[in-house]
This record gives sequence, structure tokens and C-alpha cells, in this order.
Amino acid sequence: MPDPPPHVVILGGGFGGLNAARALARAPVRVTLIDRRNHHLFQPLLYQVATAALNPSDIAVPIRRILRSQQNAHVLLAEARSVDLHAKVVELDEDMVAYDYLVVATGARHSYFGHDEWAPFAPGLKSIGDALEIRKRILLAFELAEREPDARLRDAFLTFVIVGGGPTGVELSGALCEIAQHALSRDFRRINPAQARVILLEGSDRVLQSYKPELSQKAREQLEHLGVEVSTGKRVTSVDAEGVGLGAERIEARTVLWAAGVAGSGLGRGLGVPLTREGRVEVAPDLSIVGHKEAFVVGDLAGLKQDGAPVPAVAPAAMQEGRHAAYNILRSIAGQPTVAFRYVNKGSLATIGRSAAVADLGKIRLSGLPAWIAWLGLHLLFLVGFRNRLVVLFEWAWSFLSYDRGARLITGPIRRKQEGRNEIVRPGSIAPRSEPEAAGRR
Amino acid sequence: MPDPPPHVVILGGGFGGLNAARALARAPVRVTLIDRRNHHLFQPLLYQVATAALNPSDIAVPIRRILRSQQNAHVLLAEARSVDLHAKVVELDEDMVAYDYLVVATGARHSYFGHDEWAPFAPGLKSIGDALEIRKRILLAFELAEREPDARLRDAFLTFVIVGGGPTGVELSGALCEIAQHALSRDFRRINPAQARVILLEGSDRVLQSYKPELSQKAREQLEHLGVEVSTGKRVTSVDAEGVGLGAERIEARTVLWAAGVAGSGLGRGLGVPLTREGRVEVAPDLSIVGHKEAFVVGDLAGLKQDGAPVPAVAPAAMQEGRHAAYNILRSIAGQPTVAFRYVNKGSLATIGRSAAVADLGKIRLSGLPAWIAWLGLHLLFLVGFRNRLVVLFEWAWSFLSYDRGARLITGPIRRKQEGRNEIVRPGSIAPRSEPEAAGRR
Repeated sequence: MPDPPPHVVILGGGFGGLNAARALARAPVRVTLIDRRNHHLFQPLLYQVATAALNPSDIAVPIRRILRSQQNAHVLLAEARSVDLHAKVVELDEDMVAYDYLVVATGARHSYFGHDEWAPFAPGLKSIGDALEIRKRILLAFELAEREPDARLRDAFLTFVIVGGGPTGVELSGALCEIAQHALSRDFRRINPAQARVILLEGSDRVLQSYKPELSQKAREQLEHLGVEVSTGKRVTSVDAEGVGLGAERIEARTVLWAAGVAGSGLGRGLGVPLTREGRVEVAPDLSIVGHKEAFVVGDLAGLKQDGAPVPAVAPAAMQEGRHAAYNILRSIAGQPTVAFRYVNKGSLATIGRSAAVADLGKIRLSGLPAWIAWLGLHLLFLVGFRNRLVVLFEWAWSFLSYDRGARLITGPIRRKQEGRNEIVRPGSIAPRSEPEAAGRR
Repeated sequence: MPDPPPHVVILGGGFGGLNAARALARAPVRVTLIDRRNHHLFQPLLYQVATAALNPSDIAVPIRRILRSQQNAHVLLAEARSVDLHAKVVELDEDMVAYDYLVVATGARHSYFGHDEWAPFAPGLKSIGDALEIRKRILLAFELAEREPDARLRDAFLTFVIVGGGPTGVELSGALCEIAQHALSRDFRRINPAQARVILLEGSDRVLQSYKPELSQKAREQLEHLGVEVSTGKRVTSVDAEGVGLGAERIEARTVLWAAGVAGSGLGRGLGVPLTREGRVEVAPDLSIVGHKEAFVVGDLAGLKQDGAPVPAVAPAAMQEGRHAAYNILRSIAGQPTVAFRYVNKGSLATIGRSAAVADLGKIRLSGLPAWIAWLGLHLLFLVGFRNRLVVLFEWAWSFLSYDRGARLITGPIRRKQEGRNEIVRPGSIAPRSEPEAAGRR
């Protein structure tokens, strides 16, 4: 009997893992891709699910379906608990999987800079579940404001704080302003959603730190034009059920969203190898784990420096790394030395709202409508799965023309007191008023 | 100051409540519609969410948006705990609302015929949350079968039992067969989803009891043609984590869905008035609660008989009753006597699968493709919201042409052991096999 082909185990079905798997399609290997979720997520559009513009399945496709025709690939729904790099075995929830080559692509999770106690009050945005939770909190805040007789509390329900001025924070705050001003504007009787405050807090001196300063400035102007209050140089010192503290200052807000920090996924720590300060795995230039040339780390979990700066935690980098790890695996199998990875930055794009975006494409820098059109086209192009592209295009066209949001659903259990909030229940009365309209529109 | 216009409180934003609210649009009343969910649900298509064909927001629209332009209507997201019919007050979770007229339209919930302990093992289908739970269980069963080395357990994961042969049971079982045979068929390596067993259990002697016997027979033939094992005259005597008992017989199945019984919603019992055996509220012919001529009950919660038979718990009846209650309220306000309700049955339609359905339109009875086209057209016509119709039409066209299912997402926490299941964790191994394909395709 001939030797079985080498077994490549890939942990994680995000951009990095999926690209590694696909790059091995015609290779003489057996591939097992393991993810604890059944779907690949188009994370750059996740904020659109969180803000009720898109449905989860518009941006998520079963990994199994993507790899359907790749006959050498096997997909397992399971959570990898740890990796024994010496025994070359991955421990799953109930099983063990042995590998010849390993690609760890389990990505990143939120980091609250040592304040994990803030997590229940300020959810971050990484998974479909996170997006639905944020969507629920946003929509529920308007519903609770409509029921709230006390003006001060009503204002707190209508104040939204986004912590972190990177791409996610910028996108979330822009989209939130648009919901409040357009999609919801005529739906309430006592409150005027258009008067909601959306506050974007950034610790450094400008939003979109990774962009050129001129584009940061353009982004800020577009955000402020939409109605976002942009506040830079502000460090959050506390987050609780009722607001955010900034040193001596305090903002009363019932909805706080976290877009500030990420750290390597928990699996990174379980490897028993050196990590960077952000919890990423230190890798050799060829993306392998130092001392384990058959094990690679790609995507947000890989702590790689290039020209003195860390390779950014963005989808294109993860895709390039995934393909590169696959390439190095094939070289190893063929008995050739592995080669160093080099990230090719093809540009950055961040969207702010309807017709508003910034794009840094190396020599060309765009903002406003041209940048937005570039963003739209590129994201549609890269959205996995033909069907989804059509549906998403339709949803976008619809919401652009109608200012409407298609997915304004509050699902899951509804608690008047949100997770971790210890609000005092006041007995109140909302008996009918003689002039129900008079109390409306502040 | 003139008297304020009368206050009409409507509990529930389903077909009954929403139609009552809309029928009062131009009337000199103030309307408060209270629902514990923010959306109206197009329940006849809920099984399509449960079987991954449609997204939740395709069949759910915010109640607020539907009533956006109805200036006399006010929507509250709140749960009605009880009603004091004498004081004319509704008690909400934290507030009280006084009414002049009341329409109770809180619908029905599952009934396990006194065996509520079966609920965790056999979820029913009433809400978006239920549909997502069922979708998760169905998709997860295939995933767990793929991981399962033991053939007997693998068969149990691939056995699906639907209890109840009414329209929901028929629709669910037909759709489940289609998923297994088409959408998933090429996605797995070790199992062949097309060999999943789908068993429809009905206690009486035929499926679709409320239809003419000839249509029941046609429906059964179409189900069996799809691959559903239809079993009539079978009473379920136990349901647990590992299967269903039918007297001495037993079916090993890890996924059991409940489509057998409904009972009036909990609020009905809180009214302190006589209920039918099914927990519905006994109403006078004009739909009012006996002894409380300003309080009406409509929809699935109303226990009304017509020509000796109960008015069926279907959407058209709820819509007619909602509008009729509104009409009687307006007559009362005008000092005129209320009039008795009469249900006009315009026909029944049940779909079975791709190109398969039965329709009983009085004199005309259809089955197969003509019935399916009638079903498609009618459901699109009644689907609330123009945008949704287009999206749903697109999704249907896509899944018809491609046999694919667009919403195959497993969301929420994934437990290998489903709710209430006390399966023994066996240490296993899924180390790579030398010939990964050989173990596949049974």
C-alpha cells in the first residue's frame, strides 16, 4: 500500500484558512479544515448586519459549500481546544486529529485592554452573534426611549457611544447616524430618532490611524457632516451600564459599542510559543512557528513585522498569508526550502456612509463618492458566492434609493435591562394622553 | 377642552391585531398596539426560515414601519402580563395602560398535550426564534453525523421525525427532504445526506385533516414521492433526547420537530373568563368577551364556532376577525349595536415541496404544479412589504433553479449535546484515514 498523502489540518475558516485550503486544491494532500462555526464570514461587511442593512446569510456562506467541489478537502464543525506541536496533534472538543502540516488561522478576539469587566456593557463586533446582539441593542434603545417618560433617561437611551476610531468604529458610527436620521425617522410618535447623538471616541489624535493624515481629516469631515460627534484624544477610563467615563468627564449612554482593540485568539496562548504584546504568535519570515517548520500561523493571529511595522490585521493580508502558507507546505513536501512572506498592500478603503468613504490606493487617494463607489465595487467583487453578491447588490440598491433598512428585527430574548445593566425599575404610567402627538417630536 | 378620542388598545401585532389597527386608520380613535416583539411575522412562511430557504427579515417587518403613516396609531414594544377587564386596564411588564376598547390578539402557543417535558426535545414553530433553533438543529444534525464514527448513532443523527401531519408538519417534512437530497447532497465526505430519513407522524388516519380526503391522499402521494415516510394512525407516547416512542414501537432520532398541537396564548388564562378545552377564549358571536362588550378577542386565541365547527386557526380567519372587531368598535362608538362575525373561507393551500402542493378552493381542488403556482402567487401577494416580496421572489427563483438554500447558517451557541440531551460523551478519534473517500457515501 502506498503512503497516504500528507494530512494538512487548517484551524479556522476565515480569510486566511479558507485561502490556504483553496490553494491546496490540486495538491497531493488531504486537507481537513476545522472551524467552530459552519460558515465563512465576510467580516468587512459585518457592521452592515449590526446596523440592520444586511441579513446574516448575505455575508456568510457555509464553509462546506465553498469547498464542496474540492475533493481533497474535508470540513469539520468542531472547536480546537489546543495543539500539541511536538506530538503534531490537535485536540478538539471530543476528538484528536493528527496532522503532518498545520495552518493556524483562528484570528483575533476583542481586547478591553485588561478591563474585561467592560465587555457586557460594550459589545464588540467579530461574529454574526455579535452583530445580532449589537443590532438588538441599537433597535431596542429606540424602543425603550419611546416608552421612557423621563427626559434625562430618554436622552441616555438616545445616546450611542462607539469606542475606537478605526475602520469598524468609523463604519458603525456612520451607519448608526443614517439609521437614526432616515430609516427610523418617521416610525416613532414620542421621540425623534433623528435627534439621537452618535459619539465616536478615539484615543489617538485622529480617526483611521493607519491611513494618511489627509484622509483621516477627510473621514472626520464626512462623519461630522453625517452628524457623528467625533472626539479624538479621549481615553475611556470606565464603562458601565449607564455610560462611559473619560477621566473626569462622563457621557450618559445606554448603548456603548466597542471597536477599540483586538488580541490574538485564545488558541494562540495554548501553543506554548512566544506571543507579541497583542497576544499574536511570533512567526518566522516564512510564517512558520519558530522551531516547528511544519506549523504555520496566518491572518490576524500571526504577529509578523515587515519593514519595522506589523503587517495589518486586514482581510487582504490574511488571504495572502493563507496562500503563502499553502505554498510553503507544498515546497516542504517537494523537499524545497520555504520562502519568506511579503505583504503586498494594494490599498485601504473605509466607508463612512451613503456616498461617503475614503480610499488610499498608494498613489491615488480618494474620498467622498468616488471612494464610496470603489468600496462598493470591491466589496461586491470579493463577496464569496455569486448568489450573495446579487442579493447584497439588491439590498444596497434598495436602501440607497429608499433610505430604508431591510433587517430591522429584534430577535432573541428581550430584556428591558440589557446584559449586565442594573437599572432600577421605576413604576411608571403610560396611560393614554389626551393629545398623543403633542408629546412627540422634541 | 373636548373629550379625548376613545383609546383602543390592541394586544398582539400578528394578522389579527394588525388588521384591527389598520381598519381603524381613519377612525376618530387613538390606537395603541402592544407586542412583545418588534415585528409582524408572516407565519405561513416561517417553515422556510426553519429550513434555511429564507432569512428572518424576508418574512418579518417591524410593526412600527407597517403603521408608520397611520397617525392615530402608537406602537409599544412591551409584554402584556394581564388584563383587568373590570378596571379596563392592561398590565405591562412595568407599566399600566388604560383602554376604552380592547382587542386581544395574542395568538396561540405550542401544546404538548400535557407533556411539557417533551418541549426541549421537540421544538415547535411559532416565532423567528423557534425557526432559528429548528434550523440550527437540522443543520447541526448533519454536521454531527459527519463526525460520528458509530454507524448506529450516525443513523440516529440522520433521522428526522416530524410530529403532526397538519400544514406545518407537511411543509416541514417536504422541505427537509429537499434540503437533504439537493442542497446538502454534495457537501459532505463521510455521510450521504440524501440517505437521511424524514418521518412524518400523524395521529389520525390522514395528513391535512382539515382538507378533503382526496387532497389528503394527493398530499401523501406527493410527500412519499419526495421521500418522506408518512405514518398515520400513530400516537406519540414519549419523546426524549434520543428518539420517539409510539407505544411499543420506537424510532431512534436525534432531531424531533413538533407540529402537532396548539393552545391559546397564556394571556387568555389571565383574563378570568371561560376558555375552551384548547385554552381559547369563548367569545360572543360579535367576537366580544361575554359580559365585556368593549373587549374583543380575535385570531388563534378566539374560540369561536361556526356551523358547529370551530373557526380554523389560520391567517385569513385572523385577518377577517381583526377587521370585524374594529368594525364593531366603531359601531359601538357610534351608538349602534354590534354585529355577529361570519368567517368566509376562501380556500386552503398547503405546499409540500418544489412544484408540489394541494389547494382546496371550494369547488376547485388543485394538486401538484398548479396548486404550487397558486400557493406561490398568493403568498407573494400577501407578504407584507414591497421590498420583501422582491427579495423572497428572488430567493425562491434562485433556490428553484439551483436547488440551493441561501440561509444555511448555524448561529447562536453550538452544543454538541442539544438542549436537554444527556448524551454520553464518548472519547473518539477522527485521525485521518488513509483513504478519506472510502469511508464516505454509504
